[in-house]
Amino acid sequence: MGKAITSRTDDYSQWYNDLVLKSELADYSAVRGCMIIRPYGFTLWENMRDALDKMFKDTGHVNAYFPLFVPKSLFEAEEQNAEGFAKECAVVTHYRLKSDPNNKGKLIVDEDAKLEEELIVRPTSEAIIWSTYKNWIQSYRDLPILINQWANVVRWEMRTRLFLRTTEFLWQEGHTAHATKEEALFEARQMLDVYADFVENFMAVPVIKGVKTPNERFAGAEDTYCIEALMQDGKALQAGTSHFLGQNFAKAFDVKFSDKNNTLDYVWATSWGVSTRLIGALIMAHSDDDGLILPPKIAPLQVVIIPIYKGDEQKARITQKVNEIIAALKQMNVRVKFDDNDNARPGWKFAEYEMKGVPVRITIGPKDLENNAAEIARRDTKEKKSVSLDNIAGNVFNLLTEIQDNMFSKAKAFRDEHITEVNTWDEFLNVLENKTGFASAHWDGTGETEEKIKELTKATIRCIPFDAKQEDGVCILTGKPSKQRVLFAKAY
Amino acid sequence: MGKAITSRTDDYSQWYNDLVLKSELADYSAVRGCMIIRPYGFTLWENMRDALDKMFKDTGHVNAYFPLFVPKSLFEAEEQNAEGFAKECAVVTHYRLKSDPNNKGKLIVDEDAKLEEELIVRPTSEAIIWSTYKNWIQSYRDLPILINQWANVVRWEMRTRLFLRTTEFLWQEGHTAHATKEEALFEARQMLDVYADFVENFMAVPVIKGVKTPNERFAGAEDTYCIEALMQDGKALQAGTSHFLGQNFAKAFDVKFSDKNNTLDYVWATSWGVSTRLIGALIMAHSDDDGLILPPKIAPLQVVIIPIYKGDEQKARITQKVNEIIAALKQMNVRVKFDDNDNARPGWKFAEYEMKGVPVRITIGPKDLENNAAEIARRDTKEKKSVSLDNIAGNVFNLLTEIQDNMFSKAKAFRDEHITEVNTWDEFLNVLENKTGFASAHWDGTGETEEKIKELTKATIRCIPFDAKQEDGVCILTGKPSKQRVLFAKAY
Repeated sequence: MGKAITSRTDDYSQWYNDLVLKSELADYSAVRGCMIIRPYGFTLWENMRDALDKMFKDTGHVNAYFPLFVPKSLFEAEEQNAEGFAKECAVVTHYRLKSDPNNKGKLIVDEDAKLEEELIVRPTSEAIIWSTYKNWIQSYRDLPILINQWANVVRWEMRTRLFLRTTEFLWQEGHTAHATKEEALFEARQMLDVYADFVENFMAVPVIKGVKTPNERFAGAEDTYCIEALMQDGKALQAGTSHFLGQNFAKAFDVKFSDKNNTLDYVWATSWGVSTRLIGALIMAHSDDDGLILPPKIAPLQVVIIPIYKGDEQKARITQKVNEIIAALKQMNVRVKFDDNDNARPGWKFAEYEMKGVPVRITIGPKDLENNAAEIARRDTKEKKSVSLDNIAGNVFNLLTEIQDNMFSKAKAFRDEHITEVNTWDEFLNVLENKTGFASAHWDGTGETEEKIKELTKATIRCIPFDAKQEDGVCILTGKPSKQRVLFAKAY
Repeated sequence: MGKAITSRTDDYSQWYNDLVLKSELADYSAVRGCMIIRPYGFTLWENMRDALDKMFKDTGHVNAYFPLFVPKSLFEAEEQNAEGFAKECAVVTHYRLKSDPNNKGKLIVDEDAKLEEELIVRPTSEAIIWSTYKNWIQSYRDLPILINQWANVVRWEMRTRLFLRTTEFLWQEGHTAHATKEEALFEARQMLDVYADFVENFMAVPVIKGVKTPNERFAGAEDTYCIEALMQDGKALQAGTSHFLGQNFAKAFDVKFSDKNNTLDYVWATSWGVSTRLIGALIMAHSDDDGLILPPKIAPLQVVIIPIYKGDEQKARITQKVNEIIAALKQMNVRVKFDDNDNARPGWKFAEYEMKGVPVRITIGPKDLENNAAEIARRDTKEKKSVSLDNIAGNVFNLLTEIQDNMFSKAKAFRDEHITEVNTWDEFLNVLENKTGFASAHWDGTGETEEKIKELTKATIRCIPFDAKQEDGVCILTGKPSKQRVLFAKAY
């Protein structure tokens, strides 16, 4: 097949890279740290984007577009945010090239076209957006502003990995402005709920909702809420964040509004985002050594039909039947493909669509036709069965729902098994080194202890879960008193 | 109202700027030459994008995403293309900022983080894409590649105008690879037809299809096809281009394929694009001194309903009826808004939605209710009439179609009146200076004459129309023989 990939047990990291490349989700590019999202990967992203976009609009948000570039003087206005991103900024310094006088046909930067002020390629858009909101907001009647933007951003990462960490990535970033703290807090929590809903119900990946410790907060936020998912290798992955920004950006950009009593106050803010990184989470939560396993709701292709035949006459008879099935499936809005390419054998096609994670495969040969039947194979469990052609479309439609549910249940069972309460340092180390997953442990609440634990184990506090029960305990490292457990894990 | 705009006759250019800003389609930004597309403008763009995207997919194309940055060595590989864009390139030279030791809280570029090779912010993506296609194409079985990308691009323009010419803009760029010249030529023409279809049938703007002269070709193309539209001030606007690139990029990036006989040959290419510039064309083709006039098919809002009432009781009765109308309109997928905001008077609302170009306004007051009627006003002709509430939704639905058709007819009549055959230099000047629009004239076919005419009049050859009839004539400037007329105009 030429398509075999490294197994997860041999080398999980290599398995992931092989899978992304061989399933043709993405490719490396000629630009350091930047990836190419290939058509199969981009269709997956479009399905994810469309579902999220609908959820944003259903909760009252509208899309807009702000510039790619941020002038340095605006970028540095909110100091914490600027400091947080300064080390990973791509900087535009010139606006023209010219012919190289010493090298015919080559170009060099034209030093006469140096910008007076450097432009930062946006790593996130709070600065450019809040410098604009200043012009749009005078009174409480201008609030709330509920804007989202789908965009590319650039963060100069030293170590990059396809989808998980790339220099340029695609994302959406919501930026909202509110008259009251309560409203902004509600918004930040609401959007975290939207993310959790999407990741669980479309991507079939269970998440834990919680709040980040101050050390792990977004630069410039008062609080960062997050959803944390678990990958098959027992490492956690932050799948989305929603920030309560307080009045930090309003103060940095002097954005005030007059309320009903004509009193001036700074505006309250949130921002929230998810990115193409989610595709990395999707792959690592579900897939196996034969390839991708994609949840039906967002799979680019939900059903593939492969004919088995000898000669044109058999092919024609099968095709006639298949066209009926396709028509019925399309009526149900099922994304279906009939692969009747003569140049590839059925076995090759089976492997190809397994690699690509198509949820359901229907195979029809001459024997099947005689028996008014077809073979249905599901990608998640690899089960096959023969089914009657009568109402096969309805059966397949139901099977897609079953696969979606089963993928979530399986991932949830795995995740639940990998949340371990630990009460001593040794238990903690044992979970991190052997069982893996989340260690639910008491922590004394200080940044110093958090840092020390990270140095010793590489584990970080993924979040303080919203539903953490209140109980007395002692910090696993310092023995100091603690009132609730937090979730530690090694993470992507 | 505070919303009045400059009239077209007073200052066409100011009218355009006022309109864009006051209808809240877009705003200036803090970044030189870059604009902010506000939610109302972005919804319009989403509607345009979605319609185009469907047309691309219906013709077999798929979306993908390639990096924002192009390493300089790749950028300069296709020399004509590189030369064409070199003077307007934003260049990334550094990848880090650091604290300014002399200015607390401020940042400076970290000179230790200078890139070994500069990165160009893509002005167009042929270079990065063809450097990738080299890895994807070995044999005829890998062809055709029919990829489109929705992206932001940057061209450092010295004079910018909202939507029409901005440093950063949003567009789509198709990049296809083919085994034969004929197939590539077919593709380039097909996509021009798709553009013409979209601009005429969705935007209600008539276009002329033709081919550019060599002087006006895309840098790196063998031929550039275009659609040209006419604005209300008599200036032309290039609304979309589709390029037959021959084997130029395949040769620059060494992209060869083996055909069925195992013979190696360079791959044939096309590229094609339209951008947010189309919104500028849309505005200038249709709108008037009261604001935007938007064609129903792409208008963010197709119908607005405004109640006229005194007191809660009247409002409640009207609202009840309006809810029925809205339900019926939504059934027909009509985008409708009920503006029952108590803080604004009906007259203010009328002006506001006229400014925003909403195609149909329904007004209902207590008298109307008594008569089982409502007033319908159409934005394009400003006609108002009272209609029965029985089947008002159906009537409005039909009216939307009528408005779409009428807008196209009106724009086409104006355009047709403004194509003038001229046979002498004086007639030519007279059209350019007084009547405006397209001058259909004989030209001797040389770049020198074309340049000379541009110098003398600022008019350029917009295109050689595909349907230009063959006839003998003499060049309006040089008197040399010519076989067909071309279209000259002053242009945006």
